[in-house]
Amino acid sequence: MVELSPASSRRRADEILTSVRQMCDPLLREAVTSLPDPLCLMGGYHFGWWDVTGAPTLAASGKSLRPALTVCAAVACGAAPHTALSAAAAVELVHNFTLLHDDIMDADRARRGRPTVWTVWGTADAMLLGDALHALAVRVLVTDLPTHIATSAVARLERAVIEMCRGQHEDCLFGNGRRAHVADYARMAMGKTGSLMGCACALGALCAKADVATVAAMDTFGRELGMAFQFVDDLMGIWGDPAVTGKPADDLTHRHMSLPVVAALDSGTSAARELATMYRTASVDAARAAALVESAGGRQWTQQHAEQRVREAIAALSDPIAAEDLVALAHLASRRDK
Amino acid sequence: MVELSPASSRRRADEILTSVRQMCDPLLREAVTSLPDPLCLMGGYHFGWWDVTGAPTLAASGKSLRPALTVCAAVACGAAPHTALSAAAAVELVHNFTLLHDDIMDADRARRGRPTVWTVWGTADAMLLGDALHALAVRVLVTDLPTHIATSAVARLERAVIEMCRGQHEDCLFGNGRRAHVADYARMAMGKTGSLMGCACALGALCAKADVATVAAMDTFGRELGMAFQFVDDLMGIWGDPAVTGKPADDLTHRHMSLPVVAALDSGTSAARELATMYRTASVDAARAAALVESAGGRQWTQQHAEQRVREAIAALSDPIAAEDLVALAHLASRRDK
Repeated sequence: MVELSPASSRRRADEILTSVRQMCDPLLREAVTSLPDPLCLMGGYHFGWWDVTGAPTLAASGKSLRPALTVCAAVACGAAPHTALSAAAAVELVHNFTLLHDDIMDADRARRGRPTVWTVWGTADAMLLGDALHALAVRVLVTDLPTHIATSAVARLERAVIEMCRGQHEDCLFGNGRRAHVADYARMAMGKTGSLMGCACALGALCAKADVATVAAMDTFGRELGMAFQFVDDLMGIWGDPAVTGKPADDLTHRHMSLPVVAALDSGTSAARELATMYRTASVDAARAAALVESAGGRQWTQQHAEQRVREAIAALSDPIAAEDLVALAHLASRRDK
Repeated sequence: MVELSPASSRRRADEILTSVRQMCDPLLREAVTSLPDPLCLMGGYHFGWWDVTGAPTLAASGKSLRPALTVCAAVACGAAPHTALSAAAAVELVHNFTLLHDDIMDADRARRGRPTVWTVWGTADAMLLGDALHALAVRVLVTDLPTHIATSAVARLERAVIEMCRGQHEDCLFGNGRRAHVADYARMAMGKTGSLMGCACALGALCAKADVATVAAMDTFGRELGMAFQFVDDLMGIWGDPAVTGKPADDLTHRHMSLPVVAALDSGTSAARELATMYRTASVDAARAAALVESAGGRQWTQQHAEQRVREAIAALSDPIAAEDLVALAHLASRRDK
């Protein structure tokens, strides 16, 4: 295939994300506005449509990467984009349900440049909104999809939810400076991020009535891409610009065992030993820790492995030319800055 | 119909609960043990099968009222009990998902005579276990039921979850001495308790391939019974014996707006005024408050309305003779002590 230049690949990926967001938005709004108040208000706030009073805002929405994966997977399997929109919306609802719950567990106060739902309405209401979005996601699938596709899609989605719960549990363990190795980290990231991205792609293939092998290949593609995405997320948790990402780059302050840290600690260097000592104390000097991670090779290792995962994702595709848009999304995952 | 005496109705209800628990237990265990650790361990602890280390215990399980409603509704519609067992297990899984989350929100430290999951493993893991049980419930339905029944059942179950989220939100509002009236209370209780009991019965009818009118009638039966159940729960929250119920009778201490309190406050008596004053202060004398609720008529009013709801539940049944076991369960709901 003729590979796009990084700049045109990036442009293409941005076009896809914008276009899928526009296609999915009405379905998401229909689902969320069907909720009883105040869950409806909180949901619209969380998705960036409204302020805390329900007045329309121009706040940033999510990237819509997962719905884009679902739609592009369906297209790569020969279906029209609209056949996969309900599945795309369901995946986005599940993603947001987990964000709401994770923000409580991780005590994260900002998302997309705004206070998180739990800081505005309290943890109980944020938990309930998450539970309600989970329910909505499943309802969208069984209401909108043909029966036999719906049941397969629901089974896959709930399997992904359970894997995400396992991954988030492991991530919480890593959150307090507890030692983790690269293999532990990879297992966690596959659960926390890979599983839903794999599911997003598999659901697109299911909606396109693809055969079992193709659905499995799409799942693998999404999982590998999800790993790359998580690795880059971890880089941004240290070196990201909060004005661009919408959230603070405070992973080191919180002694989070993100991949650059884990890789640095596994490096056997003197920087690794200094970093390990620092992580055992209650307060971490973030600038010094970042320099140590970098000099121990953790930053470069993480970036290289993100790119390796993208190559593996693309290798899983039986026909990367037909899946050109998926390839553009995969490259975006390893080269993004937000 | 020849009505059973209260004692034989009670005996029959206990037999049904025991028998359904035995039938459902393998399905529940199969579902929970499919979870990755530590969610599996926490799930088995929550269901009363194991202690915190995973060793078998003889701890009390739940009453299994909801699964019994599902199975008895299917039987009342002419089906064999086993046709509804998966639906019964799914309803029980959803019920337990909401218990896990509610215990966190309400800061309840004891359930079924043991420490709640969040007090043992922390709130993050308890949230994750709740999310995972929600996912398992849906997965059981789409895996075990015929496709066309599965999608209807899932849609109903998720509708009930959303109603429960709304009800729990309202219940949290009533939790801090904030004034509520009987109509507010009834709306909350229908969401929090009525919706899932209605769904439990409707799913039983769906599994029995009942017609739309019968499914709707079963939903009404379950909702009315659920209201009665919640009213009696509120009586036990003040006058229950913790040794029998497995949880403290501390609703008044926490200034909870339970139905006996709401009814007492709406009575216009001098006891109501004294109770209202007491509820506005930070510390409530539980014994004095209980006496005031009783002398304002709140206790009697609640018991009478529980019985009224049971009559309305039974009136919704097209053939109470065929539904004899449902009638026994309905009477149990208004006469139980745990």
